[in-house]
Amino acid sequence: MVVELLSVGTELLMGSIVNTNAQFLAERCARLGVSVFCQTVVGDNPGRLREAVDTAVSRSDMVILTGGLGPTEDDLTKEICAQAFGWPLVEDGHTRERIQGFFKNSIYKVIPENNWKQAMIPQGALVLDNDNGTAPGLIMEKDGKRLILLPGPPNEMIPLFNNQVEPYLRKLRPGFLVTRMVKVCGVGESQVEDMLLDLIDGQSNPTIATYAKTGEVHVRVTASASDEETGDKLIKPVVKEIKKRLGRAVYSVREEETLEMTLVRLLKKHELTVATAESCTGGLVASRIVNVSGASDVFKEGFVTYSNKAKRKHLDVSKGTLKKYGAVSSQTAREMAIGGAFATDSDVCVSVTGIAGPDGGTEEKPVGLVYMACCFKDKVTVEKYQFKGNRDKVREHAAVRALDLVRRTVLENCE
Amino acid sequence: MVVELLSVGTELLMGSIVNTNAQFLAERCARLGVSVFCQTVVGDNPGRLREAVDTAVSRSDMVILTGGLGPTEDDLTKEICAQAFGWPLVEDGHTRERIQGFFKNSIYKVIPENNWKQAMIPQGALVLDNDNGTAPGLIMEKDGKRLILLPGPPNEMIPLFNNQVEPYLRKLRPGFLVTRMVKVCGVGESQVEDMLLDLIDGQSNPTIATYAKTGEVHVRVTASASDEETGDKLIKPVVKEIKKRLGRAVYSVREEETLEMTLVRLLKKHELTVATAESCTGGLVASRIVNVSGASDVFKEGFVTYSNKAKRKHLDVSKGTLKKYGAVSSQTAREMAIGGAFATDSDVCVSVTGIAGPDGGTEEKPVGLVYMACCFKDKVTVEKYQFKGNRDKVREHAAVRALDLVRRTVLENCE
Repeated sequence: MVVELLSVGTELLMGSIVNTNAQFLAERCARLGVSVFCQTVVGDNPGRLREAVDTAVSRSDMVILTGGLGPTEDDLTKEICAQAFGWPLVEDGHTRERIQGFFKNSIYKVIPENNWKQAMIPQGALVLDNDNGTAPGLIMEKDGKRLILLPGPPNEMIPLFNNQVEPYLRKLRPGFLVTRMVKVCGVGESQVEDMLLDLIDGQSNPTIATYAKTGEVHVRVTASASDEETGDKLIKPVVKEIKKRLGRAVYSVREEETLEMTLVRLLKKHELTVATAESCTGGLVASRIVNVSGASDVFKEGFVTYSNKAKRKHLDVSKGTLKKYGAVSSQTAREMAIGGAFATDSDVCVSVTGIAGPDGGTEEKPVGLVYMACCFKDKVTVEKYQFKGNRDKVREHAAVRALDLVRRTVLENCE
Repeated sequence: MVVELLSVGTELLMGSIVNTNAQFLAERCARLGVSVFCQTVVGDNPGRLREAVDTAVSRSDMVILTGGLGPTEDDLTKEICAQAFGWPLVEDGHTRERIQGFFKNSIYKVIPENNWKQAMIPQGALVLDNDNGTAPGLIMEKDGKRLILLPGPPNEMIPLFNNQVEPYLRKLRPGFLVTRMVKVCGVGESQVEDMLLDLIDGQSNPTIATYAKTGEVHVRVTASASDEETGDKLIKPVVKEIKKRLGRAVYSVREEETLEMTLVRLLKKHELTVATAESCTGGLVASRIVNVSGASDVFKEGFVTYSNKAKRKHLDVSKGTLKKYGAVSSQTAREMAIGGAFATDSDVCVSVTGIAGPDGGTEEKPVGLVYMACCFKDKVTVEKYQFKGNRDKVREHAAVRALDLVRRTVLENCE
């Protein structure tokens, strides 16, 4: 089955926003074993949109379109697709009712006249109810060609895809696809590939693919089988082998679990509290922990101690240490972690101090040099890193590694 | 001039990475007055790439290609473009020397054989030296059609575009394009449009376009003229009028200046120090300030006080206030800001407390409710917001507004 993506919207075409929808859909399709062979972006221009739809239909079995389903005159995707298939637009009573219901709970007193346009459906299309907006999704099938129309806002598109399009695609595929993600931190992509080379090369079902993220590598294992149980059986030994080889670098095998979610789960499990003492990351580590829903059970407080004075006052870093070794040193990192644990009465405290750049680097302490320490009940681990990239990248990498340092420390001491 | 973008790479096509290059190039082209009419992504497949190049050349005057210039066998963009124009590949001595120079300073002892492939150039192409990698950019012109080939990694592509492609495009355009960005915070996009409606509708040169960002609106003013001075003269009164209408909501008219950069600049100017006291944003506000190079002059320390206990201990929020009004209340926000300023001996302290969700909301205090306060030398301003969206969005919006609250407070008190 040949599939392509067509994103509609002048704001995409002009570069006002990044096309994250295309990335989401391409990745999801790949996961389902449906390969996307082309992605196109066109603006809200009827002639060009029609041309793009015709080209896509002529060369592909399925076209997934996003955007252009809104209530304004610029929104033309549905109209153009109906034209391309030669289908008339008819009012859909069910969708009309849903639009009414949507506005009942909104701040609008009167439903804008424009919105009734969204109740018009190409005759013969399958309507996908949208719980997060007024534009329904649509599936149109004709002569073996399929058009799937989804609204552009990701908060509407993603649930529609997950709940309605994915099950539809699964039914179309002969057989079943089972996939599992192994998430790794602290080992580079090429190193992961080296460690799994014979598995990657030797396997055709399941297949293994690696994806590099900031400070992380994700390994996707995908099996094709006649049913879910058989797929699971194919996947399990491979995932087990990958986990064995990568050891504690694997932080999760749960699809939607981030590193900080794993960390919060682990801290909860062992009934531990955590605090942060950050210099160059400036609150990034705390902010990632706090972003996990339910983090309040484990995270009580954090310090952003950017100045030496603040390091001394809140974390009790000694004047002598700062003078002799400097703020960016293993000694300062160590004292920050110990002081932070003490000041907050937490079981674990992680500290980060480094040179994020672009200024402040020296030959001895270059930009990208970061020390971090983790104090766990009086035991301190200090790590030294030399990160590459600009200020943002250095800080992001440092935050990931600091979260992982806490994770590894808890594992080593509690499991 | 009809321009289109062609991004080459299987990792883009499969959704492993987001196509930020296309957004960058589309925005830059729009700024230069060169409108992109189509964006396409294809994989590293010679047949499909050739088809995509031929289609693009047949319908556009210029095609900007990114990716596929690497040293491996998969990298085919240059080869396919040379074929499409019927140009042979010849070795370029200058590029060969540059590759040699690049490896001299690297960890490699021997230059990988593959890399010499990158010294082969389509005969007749203009070579754009790449200071950040071994793949040069290329400009190919034939019969009024132009192909511009750029490497895929953004850290190579962006400097090549800025330093070599942009001047080339400027020369191609008859006349001169001058552009200015007015950056606005605290007013929604539709409200900005309403306030500027007569300007937007009434102007054809300069043109005015608005772009919505998280918590911000950017207004681009673009004038076309025979020279820069004339362009400037056209733009100035319009920018002045926009600033007059939007008042203090305008935080900057500098293209690359972010809200936090403006804030740090402003604090430095008035020799003020700032501290943060964050609950639901969990360090995001501090982290955005610290991310500004040179922030250490104004930012000394911040607190992430997630628990009530931490709010009491570090910020001296009274037990009675927490009990009577709750942690998410204007009273607590006020005491956090006052306590933070006192504890850190800073001129300004901003506090944020709210319900980011998805849990913790009640009828009286729903998810998205955020209070923030700014204490400036004993004077406190408290603001209440009701943000929409998921946990991430609520936190991001709150962080933007908190930064802006500090900015407005400093302006009101010092200018």
